[in-house]
Amino acid sequence: MLNFTVGPVMSDDAVLEIASHSTPYFRTPEFSALMLENEALMLRFLSAPAGSRCVFLTSSGTGAMESAVMNILNDRDKVLVVNGGSFGKRFVELCRLHKRDMTEIKLDFGHALHREQLELYAGQGYTALLVNMHETSSGVLYDMPMIASFCKEQGLLLIVDAISAFLADELDMEALGAAAVLTGSQKALAVQPGISVVALAPAALERIAANEEVCMYLSLKDALKNAERGQTPFTPAVTTLLQINARLKAIEAAGGAAVERRKIAKVARQLREGIADLPLTMISENPSNAVTAVHPEHAPATEIIRILKDEYQIWACPNGGALADEVFRIGHIGHITEQDNQTLIDALHDMQKKGTL
Amino acid sequence: MLNFTVGPVMSDDAVLEIASHSTPYFRTPEFSALMLENEALMLRFLSAPAGSRCVFLTSSGTGAMESAVMNILNDRDKVLVVNGGSFGKRFVELCRLHKRDMTEIKLDFGHALHREQLELYAGQGYTALLVNMHETSSGVLYDMPMIASFCKEQGLLLIVDAISAFLADELDMEALGAAAVLTGSQKALAVQPGISVVALAPAALERIAANEEVCMYLSLKDALKNAERGQTPFTPAVTTLLQINARLKAIEAAGGAAVERRKIAKVARQLREGIADLPLTMISENPSNAVTAVHPEHAPATEIIRILKDEYQIWACPNGGALADEVFRIGHIGHITEQDNQTLIDALHDMQKKGTL
Repeated sequence: MLNFTVGPVMSDDAVLEIASHSTPYFRTPEFSALMLENEALMLRFLSAPAGSRCVFLTSSGTGAMESAVMNILNDRDKVLVVNGGSFGKRFVELCRLHKRDMTEIKLDFGHALHREQLELYAGQGYTALLVNMHETSSGVLYDMPMIASFCKEQGLLLIVDAISAFLADELDMEALGAAAVLTGSQKALAVQPGISVVALAPAALERIAANEEVCMYLSLKDALKNAERGQTPFTPAVTTLLQINARLKAIEAAGGAAVERRKIAKVARQLREGIADLPLTMISENPSNAVTAVHPEHAPATEIIRILKDEYQIWACPNGGALADEVFRIGHIGHITEQDNQTLIDALHDMQKKGTL
Repeated sequence: MLNFTVGPVMSDDAVLEIASHSTPYFRTPEFSALMLENEALMLRFLSAPAGSRCVFLTSSGTGAMESAVMNILNDRDKVLVVNGGSFGKRFVELCRLHKRDMTEIKLDFGHALHREQLELYAGQGYTALLVNMHETSSGVLYDMPMIASFCKEQGLLLIVDAISAFLADELDMEALGAAAVLTGSQKALAVQPGISVVALAPAALERIAANEEVCMYLSLKDALKNAERGQTPFTPAVTTLLQINARLKAIEAAGGAAVERRKIAKVARQLREGIADLPLTMISENPSNAVTAVHPEHAPATEIIRILKDEYQIWACPNGGALADEVFRIGHIGHITEQDNQTLIDALHDMQKKGTL
């Protein structure tokens, strides 16, 4: 099967080879050294400011989002959440569950956020802003420099879910002044799902040290303490962490995060050009390089996804809920070759010929 | 390297082959069917009562322990915790963090629990008992029928951490009347770490439905709801779940949980007989089949572990904290052959000859 979802994605052979061996024991100096290398490379690729730290949780990206809401924020915060789709909604729900004083900025699906929409909340005592840099459900990449400049002016702590944006879109933690950036193993890191990554600038580290613990498993305080010696509080998804190490080192050897971003941008461009003549309307303002969300003009999205799977051995990515028949997504992250892209483009043209698109 | 730790453990070729392919997309009918099969096989191997359910969390075993404390118990409970080592202590800490009214039954390291120790807490309004069936840090297997009979008489909800005991030691959820049983992927299931398993009898399911949500990521309510259709609320460690499926089906084909238990018991017996003449004192009353904890009479445990790793390419399992130099452990779970066992036995005898044991 060819996999064009936005995660889990396809992995390269070097990554797969690692998981073809039994998981090594991990309370060893060798594994600690590897984890310290993972931390250093993640911080470098994120352009994190001096004094930043990075921890790896054995969880989905939602685990990282919840750990940020639980560990970095507290009940004295007044929080803004940008809600432009499923993942913005998740931040809203997490803030409600943990009783944060929260205001959501609700956007129409597929729409960008503009400065004047943020301006409404200026000077009102807000202390933090949560945003899914790339709202993966709609494909919209928010204008991060604009959001960051608002946060700086207003003195807001900026927490960035970059789960599907890391390595796909421009992301400089220091330039943005972001306190925390989150990502996951199964997006552009292109290894198995099971690990989420939380990078923390000094502003977030101070808050974590001062805040009370509310959950042992998702404790960033505990994760940070153990990570000082390259370890985790509990048995992590060791194999996935070894795969992450191989990927980070390969990206470094090939020229770093900027080179990887250009590679993903090229995959996205080729696919978008290849389907431009088809009855598929791009629905995102300012799309991320990670994914293209389209509205099929003639057929239900669920049916297109089923046909691609059953007749062409291709996975495309469905949308959930009310939009299930209106929107589907094509991912550009993971080990996708030019030839893979062409196979999907040809399949969609073939469907058009047969009248199923 | 030969791995004789108690997790992660060695996997067989069929399991490893699965991880040598890219992770498939999982919001599909095919993956749902596989997950429903995983649930059914887990419940069968646990002899779970009718109406039980089983969910799979992307977390370590501690995630499952915390989910039980958060989702099954509430602040009206009065909880007993058996604390005979690191994992008993973890249940104590989890109960404190979540403000449960809790009493710990503290045991000396390596000691069994006796009926008269439990009797002290009879008739005092306790509502639940948490126990690590096999206290992995000391190797002690508690007398579960005795504990279960006390719980039945006193009307206590019994929550069993069987993380390292599942498939290694006798475990019948219905006979014990256990409300919940926990395990993990990297113990006798012998696949990668990253998945914990929570089996729930109707008594636990009722409480989960009635209790308030305190954590989204570790929500059993949400996990149960999604598992009805063979799915998970968030992207799980898909590859590890595929490996679990292969293992469960292989165990079923070979005769089920009882046959697997006999296999592990045999590995344990062979190893114990093979090292009986060495200056290694067994320290556990009633040892589990999963592990043998020993006190080396002449050399520090940490040094023995280092020599085994560096000179014999064998991982044995260290103990943490104050016992680091006093105790080490040899695991019997995972893909360990008779020949592997002999290699370790020979290595320890060689060390004795060289004066390093």
